[in-house]
Amino acid sequence: MAGRLITLEGGEGVGKSTQARLLCDWLSGQGTSAVATREPGGTPGAEAIRGLLLGGSEDRWSVTTEALLVAAARSDHVERLIRPALAAGKWVICDRFLDSTLAYQGGEGGLSDDVLLNLHDIASGGLRPDLTLVLTLDAEESARRAAARDGGRPDRFGARDAAFHRRIDAAFQARLKAEPVRCRQVDASGSAEEVTGRIRALVAPLLQ
Amino acid sequence: MAGRLITLEGGEGVGKSTQARLLCDWLSGQGTSAVATREPGGTPGAEAIRGLLLGGSEDRWSVTTEALLVAAARSDHVERLIRPALAAGKWVICDRFLDSTLAYQGGEGGLSDDVLLNLHDIASGGLRPDLTLVLTLDAEESARRAAARDGGRPDRFGARDAAFHRRIDAAFQARLKAEPVRCRQVDASGSAEEVTGRIRALVAPLLQ
Repeated sequence: MAGRLITLEGGEGVGKSTQARLLCDWLSGQGTSAVATREPGGTPGAEAIRGLLLGGSEDRWSVTTEALLVAAARSDHVERLIRPALAAGKWVICDRFLDSTLAYQGGEGGLSDDVLLNLHDIASGGLRPDLTLVLTLDAEESARRAAARDGGRPDRFGARDAAFHRRIDAAFQARLKAEPVRCRQVDASGSAEEVTGRIRALVAPLLQ
Repeated sequence: MAGRLITLEGGEGVGKSTQARLLCDWLSGQGTSAVATREPGGTPGAEAIRGLLLGGSEDRWSVTTEALLVAAARSDHVERLIRPALAAGKWVICDRFLDSTLAYQGGEGGLSDDVLLNLHDIASGGLRPDLTLVLTLDAEESARRAAARDGGRPDRFGARDAAFHRRIDAAFQARLKAEPVRCRQVDASGSAEEVTGRIRALVAPLLQ
């Protein structure tokens, strides 16, 4: 049986990478082989592209260039990690994917969903997640967590102001409304264990 | 008056970069402000992407990833160098552009012209050259020149075999057939001065 692709989405500091790891561990404990990965990145080539994307000043890239670099990284990641893992029956838990593109380069950046889906389909051969978990937190709390995590050296996105992060949150809310079956909201407040419990409740039906 | 975009195309070692510089000097001597540039590259961001594209082993990137990286570099180059120069009335002489994409990632790589033109239009806002000069040389002579120039350390494309270079030449011949008005063939044999003379004869009508 082919594996499943589950993506974790949301703004900076909501706990996506921690939850991706915890979900992966839990699935393995259930006897389901799973791999945790992230975007942009996940393969040596895509991580090199990530270095270009996240380094430098805020205006280093226009939103169009950024979207093309994200798509290039996704192409390498899907072809060399995600598709082979799914074909081998593994579950893939990915920290950011299509919906981050639609939120950051779309909702916030101003590119149309048509252009971004077009690039996504060229890059991924039309791959869609089986389930997308959108972690949400009030903007002040998520900005506080992001700042604490980056230790004062945030990247091109983490460095932006609270108004930017509020617009990103609104863009993820729009994603939840646009695709209510694939995209499910997860309250990311409380301890990592509490959030994990909420995620397991949404993932468990896919295991049957 | 807006400037003109002239692109120089052709396989490895046909003398594109030398001729771009000579054409630029000649135009300046005619009182026409001109700038020579190249793809992938031409701006600091695009040159960083070029480093990713040309470094590493032959199979470092799939053709889809390569096409997306080329488009990302083009987006930066068009937005930050080519369009501002054209708007300022300058002529832009570019060593490789759209037709190299169609020859390398299309004819040779197997991506469709539809996908590649779609990416080009997203990256460039639909920009087309006013004139494209396709420099041609028999495959053995161009391979010899490329090897001599690279001093034994060719990049991911220059390193490929004679059959590869013959297929690239055939792809450029197909471009000449597909767009006979925009794309003009230039015999690249003989001295640099002889080739320059042939190029000037094709460019001169645009100066009037």
